[in-house]
Amino acid sequence: MNYILKSIPDRTVKPRTSGFTMAMDKGLSLREVEDFIEVSGDFIDIVKFGWATSYVTKRLKEKIELYRSAGIPVYFGGTLFEAFLVRDQLDDYRRLLDTYELTFAEVSDGSITLDHEKKCEYIRMLAKQVTVLSEVGSKDAAKIIPPYKWIEQMQKELDAGAWKVIGEAREGGTVGLFRDSGEVRQGLVEEILTKIPEDRIIWEAPQKEQQVWFIKLLGANVNLGNIAPNEFISLETLRLGLRGDTFDHFLNLGV
Amino acid sequence: MNYILKSIPDRTVKPRTSGFTMAMDKGLSLREVEDFIEVSGDFIDIVKFGWATSYVTKRLKEKIELYRSAGIPVYFGGTLFEAFLVRDQLDDYRRLLDTYELTFAEVSDGSITLDHEKKCEYIRMLAKQVTVLSEVGSKDAAKIIPPYKWIEQMQKELDAGAWKVIGEAREGGTVGLFRDSGEVRQGLVEEILTKIPEDRIIWEAPQKEQQVWFIKLLGANVNLGNIAPNEFISLETLRLGLRGDTFDHFLNLGV
Amino acid sequence: MNYILKSIPDRTVKPRTSGFTMAMDKGLSLREVEDFIEVSGDFIDIVKFGWATSYVTKRLKEKIELYRSAGIPVYFGGTLFEAFLVRDQLDDYRRLLDTYELTFAEVSDGSITLDHEKKCEYIRMLAKQVTVLSEVGSKDAAKIIPPYKWIEQMQKELDAGAWKVIGEAREGGTVGLFRDSGEVRQGLVEEILTKIPEDRIIWEAPQKEQQVWFIKLLGANVNLGNIAPNEFISLETLRLGLRGDTFDHFLNLGV
Repeated sequence: MNYILKSIPDRTVKPRTSGFTMAMDKGLSLREVEDFIEVSGDFIDIVKFGWATSYVTKRLKEKIELYRSAGIPVYFGGTLFEAFLVRDQLDDYRRLLDTYELTFAEVSDGSITLDHEKKCEYIRMLAKQVTVLSEVGSKDAAKIIPPYKWIEQMQKELDAGAWKVIGEAREGGTVGLFRDSGEVRQGLVEEILTKIPEDRIIWEAPQKEQQVWFIKLLGANVNLGNIAPNEFISLETLRLGLRGDTFDHFLNLGV
Repeated sequence: MNYILKSIPDRTVKPRTSGFTMAMDKGLSLREVEDFIEVSGDFIDIVKFGWATSYVTKRLKEKIELYRSAGIPVYFGGTLFEAFLVRDQLDDYRRLLDTYELTFAEVSDGSITLDHEKKCEYIRMLAKQVTVLSEVGSKDAAKIIPPYKWIEQMQKELDAGAWKVIGEAREGGTVGLFRDSGEVRQGLVEEILTKIPEDRIIWEAPQKEQQVWFIKLLGANVNLGNIAPNEFISLETLRLGLRGDTFDHFLNLGV
Repeated sequence: MNYILKSIPDRTVKPRTSGFTMAMDKGLSLREVEDFIEVSGDFIDIVKFGWATSYVTKRLKEKIELYRSAGIPVYFGGTLFEAFLVRDQLDDYRRLLDTYELTFAEVSDGSITLDHEKKCEYIRMLAKQVTVLSEVGSKDAAKIIPPYKWIEQMQKELDAGAWKVIGEAREGGTVGLFRDSGEVRQGLVEEILTKIPEDRIIWEAPQKEQQVWFIKLLGANVNLGNIAPNEFISLETLRLGLRGDTFDHFLNLGV
């Protein structure tokens, strides 16, 4: 930090299990990756190459290596897992993870219909190879999953070996955990939290108002995902009560 | 491509006449141009320097040269043509195209009122000097042009020598082909397609939902324009059925 | 300018007191700062490091120096002043300004409740050390300040030594001068202008439609703030009547 301010909330440091931030890289150049790391490296816990963007990413190996050399692991978005699965190419997918020496993978069913027991099998299988993040929630705004089912699926996926479960929101933040308008499905989140330990969940929250809502509910060290690279500094100031939206919140708590 | 996935739609390659993507550059630095080409060069068919941004662009010659050396032609937005025309400086405009050795130019009437026969004359005149893109549709949300008139104008402009016609949407995607809300004027597009060959049209479609709509209607190789540089990778995955929005579409077609 | 167009509105040049543009830097890397200056340096009159982003900015000294060496002064967002003030660390804040050799500072009360006489005292105090920009308006959309109070506060803050007063809008442009929807509080602006000299005000106007509205009301050389770095070229063309939105406006005036 560049200067001392009293009463700033404590932030966890790397390697974090809470206060964790997952970035969404949807096509940065190598130079832009360098800049992202220069500016926000301390706050980037993991990077997702959004959906199947890795298919058309130039200099993919170098790009992964660039993040890795800054201590930041990379994984491919769940849509890529689904693209391989639906084409009966799961073995190819597993080899792909090895080819790029990835240590994380996502298992999701946001764009496909997948029997949940099957999904848990894939989690179990991949968990032998890498650390698995599993995602709950559909990318289809019309598919509303009731809270009890979110909880049941999250619990089973953690039991199957997922390191953390991710609450779906997409790049835009208008499905899954959120309504079309971007508003949080508050009852859903609160009900999930009665059953699933907070530090096992990553909440996708691309919009500022969504980040603010989670920080106010769960504090500076809530796990958040799908953060755009140029929003990392903003998010860090929100976590610290140093932007208008959370300025009062931490002061009122007497942090 | 970095790995093999079965059943991916075929994409045309450069030089493309269909599956064509036009980028909107509204002020990238030289370094940002280099990055854009590194990341998306294979998918950039032509670059428009939006409206009259070229008036205040630093190192304009170098910038054009940078794109050109990557095999990407550049042209000035139609608003610049209109700015010269309305000031009675058309000869200056024609000299300007030569000064910068441009091979493309746009003829439009989005911000001015122009007799259509006159517009076609300008197309004929400029077509002797460069390849002409002509644009149909107003930048004024209040000026609704009925479908039969879009068709009539497009046909006459092609007859006058336009290489392709562009359907207006602006940077935001809220006029011309689209309603204020960004929703496609579906009937308009469908009616146009009954008369004008698809590969002679470039649809400006800056918003993701708009791109998805056109890809679902016309396939992976629809011509799209006004794509922001940082959306090129996303668009390419949409074309290939590798993002949630079009994931099902191509699988259902059994591509 | 790259070519000659007749009837372009005159623009002021640096150092400007009107036609002034304040940029919002919310976390650019050093390289991105270089690019910003390359592209838009002529139009950047001052840069604000948004809210308290400077707390977590890497290589802060170098970054300030980079702007300074291009003749562009930097200041810290008013939220930082408030963060120090509310923690009883005002002396630390004043030392901080010296440490970074800043020549400008902002005094605001967007996130705190501050007696207005007190606010004016802080302006008087800081005006002995630096050039003070003071900001009027709350960051809380629910706190509507009536026009007569805006005027009273602006006048008192100028009397206390503020160089210019800033009308609040935040990064998004949805509070203070604007409604939730981003629409200008037109009556408010017009009433302010009956009492406060136009060149003493900087209007925060991050959205294009807001910039257009102010340019149409006050001309090419209105003072605007909270402009995102990648919108500077667009804004300059709006000021010059070289984008669709203001194309007619200046021609009709016969500029």
